[in-house]
Amino acid sequence: MRAAIFNGPRSITVGERPDPVIQSPTDAIVRVVLACVCGSDLWYYRGDSRHEVGSIGHEFIGVVEAVGGEVTAVKAGDLVVAPFIFSDMSCPNCLNGSTITCPVGGSFGNGLIDGGQGEAVRVPLAGSTLVPVPGEGHPDEVLKSLLALSDVMSTGYHAAVSARVREGSVVAVVGDGAVGLSAVLAAGRLGAERIIALSRHPERQRLARDFGATDILEERGEAAKEKVLELTGGFGVDSSMECVGTAEAIATAFAITKAGSTVGGVGLPHGGVPYEEVFFRNIGWGCGPAPARIYIPALMRDVLDGRINPGRVFDFETDLEGTPGAYAAMDERRAIKSMIRVSSI
Amino acid sequence: MRAAIFNGPRSITVGERPDPVIQSPTDAIVRVVLACVCGSDLWYYRGDSRHEVGSIGHEFIGVVEAVGGEVTAVKAGDLVVAPFIFSDMSCPNCLNGSTITCPVGGSFGNGLIDGGQGEAVRVPLAGSTLVPVPGEGHPDEVLKSLLALSDVMSTGYHAAVSARVREGSVVAVVGDGAVGLSAVLAAGRLGAERIIALSRHPERQRLARDFGATDILEERGEAAKEKVLELTGGFGVDSSMECVGTAEAIATAFAITKAGSTVGGVGLPHGGVPYEEVFFRNIGWGCGPAPARIYIPALMRDVLDGRINPGRVFDFETDLEGTPGAYAAMDERRAIKSMIRVSSI
Repeated sequence: MRAAIFNGPRSITVGERPDPVIQSPTDAIVRVVLACVCGSDLWYYRGDSRHEVGSIGHEFIGVVEAVGGEVTAVKAGDLVVAPFIFSDMSCPNCLNGSTITCPVGGSFGNGLIDGGQGEAVRVPLAGSTLVPVPGEGHPDEVLKSLLALSDVMSTGYHAAVSARVREGSVVAVVGDGAVGLSAVLAAGRLGAERIIALSRHPERQRLARDFGATDILEERGEAAKEKVLELTGGFGVDSSMECVGTAEAIATAFAITKAGSTVGGVGLPHGGVPYEEVFFRNIGWGCGPAPARIYIPALMRDVLDGRINPGRVFDFETDLEGTPGAYAAMDERRAIKSMIRVSSI
Repeated sequence: MRAAIFNGPRSITVGERPDPVIQSPTDAIVRVVLACVCGSDLWYYRGDSRHEVGSIGHEFIGVVEAVGGEVTAVKAGDLVVAPFIFSDMSCPNCLNGSTITCPVGGSFGNGLIDGGQGEAVRVPLAGSTLVPVPGEGHPDEVLKSLLALSDVMSTGYHAAVSARVREGSVVAVVGDGAVGLSAVLAAGRLGAERIIALSRHPERQRLARDFGATDILEERGEAAKEKVLELTGGFGVDSSMECVGTAEAIATAFAITKAGSTVGGVGLPHGGVPYEEVFFRNIGWGCGPAPARIYIPALMRDVLDGRINPGRVFDFETDLEGTPGAYAAMDERRAIKSMIRVSSI
């Protein structure tokens, strides 16, 4: 089959990889329909994080082609959303909301396991991992929003849940990438009354507003802190969502949060937490890779009912052969998030 | 009046300080009955944290001698417990559980504001700060437990609340100082089913058991981690309470906590959080100085009803003139926590 291959920093090619086959009775083979490039893929692309040579991409929706003998939750022909982590959903870690640490789980597209940026994927633990999509003939806009549930929207939602966003909350989102924009949408869904988005890019500001942001701040660092304090009577926001992962973004998220409140952090950490400041202001911290599999069913209902449209973060499209260009568009910030059309339903 | 005076590292003397007088209509003057030495006072004593020359001590109970014109919640003659922070309990920070950041609040015994280790204290914001004790003629054991609510027991309770200890939880407490022991007691009060205490001192182990610890581990660092994982089926505890503040203790607390769970941290931070490990295991973090004023009323009912006896952490006693010896006993680890009898009720 054809698939994107990570050769090293700044080198993504599309080449041949072995056709996936059922290896275990809990496997399924999924033909990929839509895939996309994650902000975390960019860390690898830029050489900031290590990645094995080989398969890449962990976000996809597709159609089940075959299932192993023990898989009953999905069947051939089902349209499915794959969370970016496969997991058993029955171990103490999964039951505790940490699918990333499932002892028998793993991530797609890590070099060895098939990636979403390819024609097909062998999905281990398919019965507990894949979420079938009810109905048929979904329009393209809905398919794009279903693809967003695979990672980016679930991750934004995890930021908001981790930050304990509640009905009536005044919140802030640090980061206007696709995850940050998804966090804006998620905060609104959780009832936030005022959503302050830190963004200095006109198109992202526009999408943030469409997703529910009530205030847009172009300031960064100390100036952003002053502005948020000014907007919140000097006390800071009830919850903040850190969707970048750099030291500056983490520091800003803590600085703009009200004493006694919580920061939800989903930015892949490339900076530390200013612990003394956190401690002496009683700021809580919830963080980590999203347990997407837990969030997808409820978010899928919202997508199918038209209440949320997270697929709007995709503003660049290509086909599988164009995958290198999908990375370049995000790397050069020409795109918020790149989608790859791999096949038709 | 006579009061302990911090002159610099390893120099505590008892000398003369001005008698406190009402300076504001929201003040009260409290004659100190019992006071004690905090683990955080030891950081100053040892020169590990800075402290102004002057008053010291922030834990005390006493009898109100006079109140300003606007104080109605307490009156002369009342026996009161003072939380270690005075605060207005009505600002957004106090209402959000962070009394330490009350804009008009502060800490006792910071060099300038009267300390608990003295004959009397001017208490600012007395109406919202002091908690009157109902009843009369309380035995000495009860008075000691009421003193413990001023800081150490409230801090242990904050560790347990911040770590989200629940009915049936399996928990661990890192640190067998007075705060760690109080956290054991607090975890039991919150319904923990199994309480693992890390301790290698026989008397502290004994008190931990009396306070409800079900398992005592003498291991530290990597060995402690292995042992806790062995006791918890390889997954770690549902909640852990970090009651030391050193880098090693913080690292241990995170390492023994189940992925997806929460560490409650009340140890004064002298080390950072291992953020990457925290992130990739979805571990939450609640921390900071306890909002003792919020916890005292409920804990006081437990003390008066005989359900908890946190005053048992005091295993060294002296009078006000003996305050330097109270510090030395804790510094040399001859005492878990030193109490100072300043006056009779």
